[in-house]
Order: sequence, then structure tokens, then C-alpha cells
Amino acid sequence: MPSANASRKGQEKPREIVDAAEDYAKERYGISSMIQSQEKPDRVLVRVKDLTVQKADDVVWVRARVHTSRAKGKQCFLVLRQQQFNVQALVAVGDHASKQMVKFAANINKESIIDVEGVVRKVNQKIGSCTQQDVELHVQKIYVISLAEPRLPLQLDDAIRPEVEGEEDGRATVNQDTRLDNRVIDLRTSTSQAIFRLQSGICHLFRETLINKGFVEIQTPKIISAASEGGANVFTVSYFKNNAYLAQSPQLYKQMCICADFEKVFCIGPGKILSFICLLIDIEMAFNYHYHEVVEEIADTLVQIFKGLQERFQTEIQTVSKQFPCEPFKFLEPTLRLEYCEALAMLREAGVEMDDEEDLSTPNEKLLGRLVKEKYDTDFYVLDKYPLAVRPFYTMPDPRNPKQSNSYDMFMRGEEILSGAQRIHDPQLLTERALHHGIDLEKIKAYIDSFRFGAPPHAGGGIGLERVTMLFLGLHNVRQTSMFPRDPKRLTP
Amino acid sequence: MPSANASRKGQEKPREIVDAAEDYAKERYGISSMIQSQEKPDRVLVRVKDLTVQKADDVVWVRARVHTSRAKGKQCFLVLRQQQFNVQALVAVGDHASKQMVKFAANINKESIIDVEGVVRKVNQKIGSCTQQDVELHVQKIYVISLAEPRLPLQLDDAIRPEVEGEEDGRATVNQDTRLDNRVIDLRTSTSQAIFRLQSGICHLFRETLINKGFVEIQTPKIISAASEGGANVFTVSYFKNNAYLAQSPQLYKQMCICADFEKVFCIGPGKILSFICLLIDIEMAFNYHYHEVVEEIADTLVQIFKGLQERFQTEIQTVSKQFPCEPFKFLEPTLRLEYCEALAMLREAGVEMDDEEDLSTPNEKLLGRLVKEKYDTDFYVLDKYPLAVRPFYTMPDPRNPKQSNSYDMFMRGEEILSGAQRIHDPQLLTERALHHGIDLEKIKAYIDSFRFGAPPHAGGGIGLERVTMLFLGLHNVRQTSMFPRDPKRLTP
Repeated sequence: MPSANASRKGQEKPREIVDAAEDYAKERYGISSMIQSQEKPDRVLVRVKDLTVQKADDVVWVRARVHTSRAKGKQCFLVLRQQQFNVQALVAVGDHASKQMVKFAANINKESIIDVEGVVRKVNQKIGSCTQQDVELHVQKIYVISLAEPRLPLQLDDAIRPEVEGEEDGRATVNQDTRLDNRVIDLRTSTSQAIFRLQSGICHLFRETLINKGFVEIQTPKIISAASEGGANVFTVSYFKNNAYLAQSPQLYKQMCICADFEKVFCIGPGKILSFICLLIDIEMAFNYHYHEVVEEIADTLVQIFKGLQERFQTEIQTVSKQFPCEPFKFLEPTLRLEYCEALAMLREAGVEMDDEEDLSTPNEKLLGRLVKEKYDTDFYVLDKYPLAVRPFYTMPDPRNPKQSNSYDMFMRGEEILSGAQRIHDPQLLTERALHHGIDLEKIKAYIDSFRFGAPPHAGGGIGLERVTMLFLGLHNVRQTSMFPRDPKRLTP
Repeated sequence: MPSANASRKGQEKPREIVDAAEDYAKERYGISSMIQSQEKPDRVLVRVKDLTVQKADDVVWVRARVHTSRAKGKQCFLVLRQQQFNVQALVAVGDHASKQMVKFAANINKESIIDVEGVVRKVNQKIGSCTQQDVELHVQKIYVISLAEPRLPLQLDDAIRPEVEGEEDGRATVNQDTRLDNRVIDLRTSTSQAIFRLQSGICHLFRETLINKGFVEIQTPKIISAASEGGANVFTVSYFKNNAYLAQSPQLYKQMCICADFEKVFCIGPGKILSFICLLIDIEMAFNYHYHEVVEEIADTLVQIFKGLQERFQTEIQTVSKQFPCEPFKFLEPTLRLEYCEALAMLREAGVEMDDEEDLSTPNEKLLGRLVKEKYDTDFYVLDKYPLAVRPFYTMPDPRNPKQSNSYDMFMRGEEILSGAQRIHDPQLLTERALHHGIDLEKIKAYIDSFRFGAPPHAGGGIGLERVTMLFLGLHNVRQTSMFPRDPKRLTP
């Protein structure tokens, strides 16, 4: 199918394709014409991860990237990569390959995509540098499907080097901005492939667990008529002939769905945490008598996710830990629930000075995480009964203590991943609390009106997806778990 | 737990709670104090849908809305509703209920949420107006959990009346704007509950099918630095100190993920079709030799969804068809694929005049849908090989006919639900086509650069979720399948 030696008009040729006239292998290599769906060849492409001793002596076709190449006399060793898997391939002068063909292979730019036909051969000594350690591919045909430009903006091997190792050996690592500026290449590393496969797994486990628990997935509007949630840095949008606002969370709408009898709802969509655009997994649920019914449901959902990840994504967890070593994630069943006043006592015992109604600073959250880990041996816990003063207007006050509230945060490795509460379902109390917070009632009229025709008690929470991925894997920057991160300084690519 | 007869300060009292002093049942009814998670009573609430003859003579607690109430001498009949299920309840003067208690029950405003304790009794004659036809609940205690205001902005029974029936009998139906202005109440009807449960099912089946096929879920940015996709009505956003744009689709980013070796990706997120904000399910996939590999994968995904819906959501389909009757959705396996020129021939035979390179108008799409249904007996098909001139710049031209392209739409009941194509994976051809379309190369630099370091051939498509729901159910307005629809004239609630 690929037309041998056809170099597409204007596409740069690998150097030194010479002596084609005398080349007995000239039909066996070259640059394929661009695939425009001209043909439907009856050819099976084998996956790199399936190249094992079971396939020894089979002739197979493989499509992969050239990860590295190394010419050595009359032969050329290639490492062929397909996602997180790779295999060694050998092009050697002989019956199938000519001198010219070996030279051609040696000169293919790294990251180019190629089709090769080869024989799978068992090797005597394990190939430590490849995931397929027991076989190599003896190449009989090699065609370039998509040629990479010669100078890569970053080297994949540098991009997966642990920082400590790079520092010690004086070998290169890649800094965050170079990675993000060239994200398409950075995402090809085994570490990135593992991170984002695991993140996709988190989304899937979330939904699977919630659907099994009887939740309904809802879609909430992303563009709203008033900046109802308040706060700084609201994004205004030109909307046809008017101005509108970007919803920063589905908070008001998911509560409206509870008023609309959906009982248990979730949605996954863009939101904002501090200055970061992020993906929010939002949950809201009617309960019978106590918001702890909801806390238990959410905490159990997270436990199911942790278990599912440890069962289904062990390879990915191991891959990431090669570059970013960390302790395995620990959790208890049932989930530990601490009250805010208990946490204050632990912090005060550790020398922290704090008022009863003061919010936790990030350093104090982290310190508390360490104290909880020491005492209870868990990386995941719920902190319950926050001071009313530090929570949003729609938070239900604690009926026993007017300075406390029926609200909670959840933490992973000492960092917040969820903030939630029982919400006020009574329109009159909601109005009072909104006024107390100085909120313009006109802007939240539709929201407050939703509670006027019967509303069940309910609670919920919002979870930052990228933070869950980051903290589960023990990473330290949320940009590592966002494919194309956005912050006040970054809008591209 | 509920404090009998306690009427919360400022909450309106049901009229005529009188003679409390002489009332032997006074502890058995009243307005409960607001649930603030004061207690965790050891009480099981039974679901309305589980009230069947198997529970006959059991004493149960139920929380539900008052759907209707009708007083009749010494008794009051209530219909209690919970989501799409309802049951008849009877409060009658006797050992458990006093005259005052019957009066109290009769005066509870419709849509209020109540807790009742009652005995499940088998009835001799089926109750045709309820989903639970074989039993009724003989009420012993009744407490209001959340009182609805007395005047409802729309009546639920009017909102589920088929329009034809309303017109014939002179009975009320509810117009679209009234529904949308009072969406929280409109969403409580059995029809709305069924529509959005089915829509949640579509999302779930989509993901389940794609994850099983090896796809990875990705998250693409919603805010971008340049209005790269062009077109009118681009939404600009104030982004910290700069201007930015709302991404109208994840097109460019999902292709970048293909260049980043994820091979098969999907994402679900907000997008825009014409002037409607909608939810897009986007798919992109690397293929080996022919884009029909992708067409078959997507068409099979949709077939799996249709099958899953017919298997798991038959109740919801039946519920919607009571208000909006329609033929069951038909499809073939494998999916019918027609070429554009064949479609033109069919239309011309039916008297339509069209040029070879002309796009299909909406009326012609609908006519074609009817012709295809007649000839092939399917409501779902793929139309392949659109004229190049009517497709976006990144569409791969057909190598055999420069006026055609490797692009396709998919249709349900004669309306488009997906538009897709093989994309150009060669940066040079992509640049040429962008220039031909008058696109500013600066604005798509990151996109074009993603193809410079090896890019596999790939194809994909974008699906409008609300349109799939609408057309599967045979509805006629996409606002019916959007919880909180947004169009140029509507930004609330």
C-alpha cells in the first residue's frame, strides 16, 4: 500500500537515500504517501504490548513511533514506542535489508510514525530498556507514515527523568513551562500517559459508583444572567447582544434539581477553584433526617474510587511513581470523621494558635493532615462542623450552636478536595442569610423561588477532579494533572 | 421527631387548625420544625414505588409530595407523589385521626412535602389514577416537612396533558415559556422525570460503550486565547486582565490529544450548535488505513446506546409517549451508510433541484430521512462523502475526487445528530486549507504545530446530546431535553 520511496511533494526527505538504482531492497522501505483513506488493506496491525514470546517467529505488522535509533555498522537498532509500551527493532543488512535501507531507517527523525513488517524473535538476554523485554522485531519492511520535524522542542527521556536523579547526575530534566508550551509532546511520555489514563479512570469510577447508587447525571447552564455566586474575578461574557457571566460552579442549579425531585444528582463540568479553571464533580442529594447520610454516601463514593484505582490502575500508579516517588494512598473504612473543634485541639496541642471561628490556612491544613496520618494512619478524612462565619450564605447553621454549621470538607494527603454542607432549604431563612452576607436578592431570585413550592432537606459537595488525581498520586502541582491548564498567566496552547 | 403542631415562626399555617385543645389526635399531625439534622431517628422511609401488595397490612413511613387532595365528609383522599410514582392515601376520622386531623390534611397545600405513617391496605378495585394501583395507605400520622406556597405557577396535571387532548376537551395545557420560567416545577412531571432520567442514561451508555472500546476521557479547555474556530457569534470573556474566548467545541484540542498518542479519546462538555448552548459528546480516534474504521466505531456506539435505552429505559420511553406519542425508534445492524451522491439522486427523484456541491437544507434533510425510512426502514443512517466546499478547513479531501471530502453526518429521524470527518494530519496541507478558508494562521499556530512531530491519520465527530434525546423520543423542540435551556433570548432561570 505505501508507495516505496515516494517522498510526498514538499515533505522533507530523510538525508542520504542514495544508490536507489542498485538497491535490491528498494521496494521494502520509503516514505508512504499521506493516508487519505485511498485503500482498505487487509492488514492487521499488532499492538506493541502484544509482542511477547507467544508471538515468537511470527511475521507481524506494527505501527509505532520511532522513540530512539542507533546505527552500528551494518545494523540499526530502533526503539519503537506505542503509548506507554516499547520494543526493540533491528534493521540489519541481509536478505531483506540493503545497506541503503539500514541507512534510511537510521535517519528517520525521532517521533516519526512508521509501519514496519518484521519477525518477532525471542532474545536470550532481557532488554532492560524496553517494556517488551523478551523479544525484538527483525525488520523486513519499513515505511514512514508521518515524518516528524528533526528538532524536538523537548526530549521524552529528559521529560520522564526524576528530578533528583537529574540533579545528581547533571542530566537534563524539563521545566514546567517548556512542558506546557509543548504539551502535545510532553503528554506522550509514559508518566503523562499514565496520569491521564488514571484521571479518565477516576471520572469513570465516579460515575459508575454514583449511577449504581441511583444518582442522575444532570447538565447545568454554563452561562448565567447574574454573577450570583459573588466573589472576585467573575468572568463576564458577551452573550449575543447582552452581557452575561460564566457560572463558576453548578451550585445553585444542582440544588434546583433537588427541588425538582431528582433526589440524587451529579454533574461534571468546568468550574473555578481560586484562580484555576478546573473540572468539578458536583454532587447533591436529598436526605431524610441528617446530613451525615450524605457525608457517608460521598465518603463511600471516594473510597470506591480509591479501591477501583488500586485494583484497575496499578500499572499507571507504578509508572508515575518511577518519576515521582510517593507512599501508597491509605484510607479507612468507614471514613474517619473529625469535628472542627477536635482538629483545633490537635493543632493547638502542636503549638498552633487559632480562634474557634477562624478558618484553616493551607499550612495548617497540611499540618493537620500529618497529625491525622500519625494518629489514625489515613490519608483521607472528613472534617465536620466548620464555623458558620467562614462558609457560604446557603450553609445550614448548626441548630445546637449558632456559631457552627452543618458543613464539612474532605481531605486527601492534607489538602482539601471537597467542600460541602447541608444547604438551607427554607426560603425565609435562606433570604435572611443572603441578606446577612450582603447578597443582592434580585440576582438570586430564581434560586430562592425554587424553594417556595416544597423543598426536601439536602446536602452535597463539589470535588476538584485534578486535585483528586494529583493527591492520589502524590504529585505537587495541579498543572501536572490538567491536560491544558489555565491560570491567570496561561491561556495557551 | 417532628414537633406536633409546631408552626415555624413566620411560616404560613394551613388554615383552620382549630380546637386543638379537644383534639385526641393532636400529637399525630402538624408542621414539623425545619430539619436541621437535629436528630438521627431510627426510622425507615419506604419508597412509594415499593408500596405493593407484598407490603399489605404493614405499617410504613413514607415521605412524598401532596400531588392532589380531596376532602369528602369525614375523610380526605390524598395522592402522594414521589418522582414518577404515586399512591392514594386516606385520612379518615376514627381511632387514629380526629376531625381536626382530617381537616389539617385536606388543607395542606399541593406540592408540600410530608411524612406520613400509615397501614398499607390492599384495595378491591384497581386505582387507575395512580402508579400503585393495588394498594392504598391508611394514614395514622401526618407531618408537613416543607410547606409549599398556596398558588402554584403551573399545575402538574396540565403540564403532562397531551396537547391534542387539551385542545379537544378545552382543558388546559402549559406553554413552553411558562414551563421554562417555572422549570423547577415543570421538571417534577412524570414526563420531565422520564426525559432527564433517559438523558442521564444516554450519557452513561455513551461512556460505558466508549470506555469498553478502549477510549480515554479527556478534559479540554473551555477558555481559549483566540477565536480559532471562526464563525459568527463568538463569545468573548473577560479573563483576569485580558480578553479571551469561549471554546465552541473541543475540536482542536481533541485532535491535539490524538497527536499526543491517546489514540481514542472522548469528552463531554458544553458547546454550541447554531445559536444554542448545548452539550457536546466529542469523539476522536486514530485509524490505521481508512476513516470508515472510525465511522463504524461511532455508528456502533450509537447502536449500543439505542439498544441500551430500549432495554433499560422502556418505562421512561412509555411515560414520554403518553404525552408525546411517536413510533419506536428503528435502526439497522450494521448501520446503513449512504453516499452523498446517492442521497442527491434520491432527492432529485423526489423532485428536489440541487447542485452536486450544495449542502443539504434542513427541509431536504427531513425529506431525505423520510425517503430513507421508506426504502430502508431505518431511523438512523450515515451520510458519507460530503462536498469539500461545505465542510470546515481541517476536513481531509477525497483523494479520488477533489470536490468531495472524507466527511460524514449521522442522522436520527431525518435530523443531523453528528458531523464528522477524517481530519488533515499533515501540517503542510492543513496550512494550505486554512489559508484557502481565509483563516488567520497566527490564531491556530499551536494547533498546526501539533502535527509537526508525527501525527497519525485520524477522524472523529461531535454529537449533540440534547438532540439525541429529543430525536430518540420523537420530540420536536430541543428545549424539552435541556434542563435549563439557553438561547439568544433566554438566560434564566
